[in-house]
Amino acid sequence: MKSLTDMQDLVALCKRRGVVFQSSEIYGGINACWDYGPLGVEMKNNVKQLWWRSMVDRDDVEGLDAAILMHPRVWEASGHVAGFSDPLVDCKKCKQRFREDKIPDENRKSKKCPNCSGELTEPRMFNLMFKTFMGPVEEDAAVVYLRPETAQGIYVNFLNVASSSRQKIPFGIAQIGKAFRNEITPGNFIFRTREFEQMEMQFFVKPGEDEKWFEYWKEQRLKWHLANGIRKEKLRFHEHRDGELAHYAKKAYDIEYEFPFGWQECEGIHNRTDFDLGRHQEYSKKKQEYYDEPTKERYIPYIVETSAGCDRTLLVTLADAFRQEEDRVFLALHPNVSAYKVAVFPLMKKPELMSVAEKVYDEIRKKYRATFDESGSIGKRYYRQDEIGTPFCVTIDFDTVEKGVLTVRNRDTKVQEKLDASKVLEYLTDQISSWKLTV
Amino acid sequence: MKSLTDMQDLVALCKRRGVVFQSSEIYGGINACWDYGPLGVEMKNNVKQLWWRSMVDRDDVEGLDAAILMHPRVWEASGHVAGFSDPLVDCKKCKQRFREDKIPDENRKSKKCPNCSGELTEPRMFNLMFKTFMGPVEEDAAVVYLRPETAQGIYVNFLNVASSSRQKIPFGIAQIGKAFRNEITPGNFIFRTREFEQMEMQFFVKPGEDEKWFEYWKEQRLKWHLANGIRKEKLRFHEHRDGELAHYAKKAYDIEYEFPFGWQECEGIHNRTDFDLGRHQEYSKKKQEYYDEPTKERYIPYIVETSAGCDRTLLVTLADAFRQEEDRVFLALHPNVSAYKVAVFPLMKKPELMSVAEKVYDEIRKKYRATFDESGSIGKRYYRQDEIGTPFCVTIDFDTVEKGVLTVRNRDTKVQEKLDASKVLEYLTDQISSWKLTV
Repeated sequence: MKSLTDMQDLVALCKRRGVVFQSSEIYGGINACWDYGPLGVEMKNNVKQLWWRSMVDRDDVEGLDAAILMHPRVWEASGHVAGFSDPLVDCKKCKQRFREDKIPDENRKSKKCPNCSGELTEPRMFNLMFKTFMGPVEEDAAVVYLRPETAQGIYVNFLNVASSSRQKIPFGIAQIGKAFRNEITPGNFIFRTREFEQMEMQFFVKPGEDEKWFEYWKEQRLKWHLANGIRKEKLRFHEHRDGELAHYAKKAYDIEYEFPFGWQECEGIHNRTDFDLGRHQEYSKKKQEYYDEPTKERYIPYIVETSAGCDRTLLVTLADAFRQEEDRVFLALHPNVSAYKVAVFPLMKKPELMSVAEKVYDEIRKKYRATFDESGSIGKRYYRQDEIGTPFCVTIDFDTVEKGVLTVRNRDTKVQEKLDASKVLEYLTDQISSWKLTV
Repeated sequence: MKSLTDMQDLVALCKRRGVVFQSSEIYGGINACWDYGPLGVEMKNNVKQLWWRSMVDRDDVEGLDAAILMHPRVWEASGHVAGFSDPLVDCKKCKQRFREDKIPDENRKSKKCPNCSGELTEPRMFNLMFKTFMGPVEEDAAVVYLRPETAQGIYVNFLNVASSSRQKIPFGIAQIGKAFRNEITPGNFIFRTREFEQMEMQFFVKPGEDEKWFEYWKEQRLKWHLANGIRKEKLRFHEHRDGELAHYAKKAYDIEYEFPFGWQECEGIHNRTDFDLGRHQEYSKKKQEYYDEPTKERYIPYIVETSAGCDRTLLVTLADAFRQEEDRVFLALHPNVSAYKVAVFPLMKKPELMSVAEKVYDEIRKKYRATFDESGSIGKRYYRQDEIGTPFCVTIDFDTVEKGVLTVRNRDTKVQEKLDASKVLEYLTDQISSWKLTV
């Protein structure tokens, strides 16, 4: 994508075709929340599924699905109650609100509004966690938080998972789930939202082996994005320097993607050391040590984390696939991600064509998610499928009825091939399993 | 299952083997929230996947994934702000709290505590929605709610989905997602929790055709539970009589399951009429009508809802599968639900056995989720797999190395069959695709 105009066009396409809708749109929307429509939910599920299988199909990674509501002490131990906050200042004149650390130095020093030069208030710390109340009757209910990250759900279950799965270090725990942050400046469509979904894997290693595993996972994660068809030149690593490093991290790399609004993080790989388990041991008073049978050692494991946003990864996928040509708009999605792999068209609504087309459709559907479209010209139908990224269109015409020959059209090359109807599933399987980005 | 002792044994098994853990357990737990461990997350994902495919693979059902945080007006329109509450009374003496509608008549009338006979307070209404604050700085942030049901996310997107998917009535929208209720009396393990996941499908029909579709979906949903291997005699319908019917419902049936703690709802099928879309039209001032092309009519569709709890359906599945015999405990799970379909055992850790076993394991894993276990006696390994419901165990011994013959053991019948190693995948496919409950 070349420009922010493309971004607007992509957002419009997403709404028009049922990929992403604004949440509660009929009520004017709710800021920074989005709903996934019929195509979006399939694409997002595909992204999640690709990540999940790449993790838990390994013998050294186990899955987990922890609750969003956790014991409030978890967030004291993690540092989120004390530290997960931004300093906010208000302009006394124009009433606008700013993050103090994001306004120019001269304004911060002189307490002058960057907007109207009015006087700014003293900074107030604003915690980014959503809080709520659990238990009957508000006044004496417990304050609990919507988790701002899924990682802590993994840490507090480390020993439960290790003992029930009989895993030995090194091993990882993978989780996909929602998290919530009361972001002050959400934006850029589904890039930064207040409700979002994370795909996190925490890999537990022996101290001293952390740097090796960090390098390993850094490479693995880049490979994963490339395998989903993302263009290599749009991805890069960014290392966190001293000032950027989070309090828990010994080393951190972002995988960045070049969005239409600039290079931004799409995933982080972090060496979190023994910080998290050490803190949970301190706050829960429960030993978080691992006993290493062969060496008879006890230690708190180091953790290498890979943390990706699910919505953000989908945005990478959509932005990277979005193509505007003179006569068409299309999504060059990897077939593993597209909502449909195949569309089936009867040339006309004649009964003899319809019945053959339905048979082909049913055959294809046994293996691939497919859609059936019988309305409008074939050109119009190609256009519709291009827009939503369906990689193959199969047309049934009188040649199919008479000679058993149908036409398969490739989304990216627009090349049409005639082939024997009985071979169509084999052909599609071959094409899909060997798919490479060519546009 | 015969008794509540069985229920306790099931809960213990779930914790020990990594199916379900208490949430934030190292901090003493958080009431009515549970975490799914390595096996539980696979089982739950399987249940969700079976439901999802049974819905969205139909040409007349589209998927959706709406946000948990919605515009607060949604809950005014739905009736949840005004009506979704329970009356609570406190005992002034022993300080215990009760739902007024659940204490005996004589206590309610005399305002006497059922526990200590102390005086009860006047009832206070307690809204079951979790509320939180969205936007920077709490004092002027908007009050928003964690959705108490996923259905409203579907209703407010009805027109977006209809127009983007070009569906014509009758058609449905299916969604799986989290919902939250500040239950006063949560309990029975994952049966009633404060954070839970729903699987809901809303089917939009022409008024007058609602009763026909209600009957259709009632039968479909029962069939779905049966197809997942739930015993027929443990399922029944319960019709809501006049007093039980919700304010939005014209007709409602529960599918009930006989849990160890009695017959309880596991799914509801509701004729919600045009109540929901009518209310959203009124509150949003946006027409929620459907234009019926062939008849040139405009109307607000009626809605037939099928609403199942995902955690609850998993509990049905586990409770129904739980078997205690003299010499073993096992889960007679449908292979579609079990975390692993196959376990592969080398008889001993000898290199020649290990390499053959690993080859067989890799072959099976191309198609089925499998696990590899090399430790302890074969009997012990059978026991471990029985406990977690793995339907087939494959043992590699010297006959495999020398003659290419391995042993497959069936979980339910305990029957062991010798077969050609090259035929194992074919054999398993045949067994799994034709699986029937026999125990």
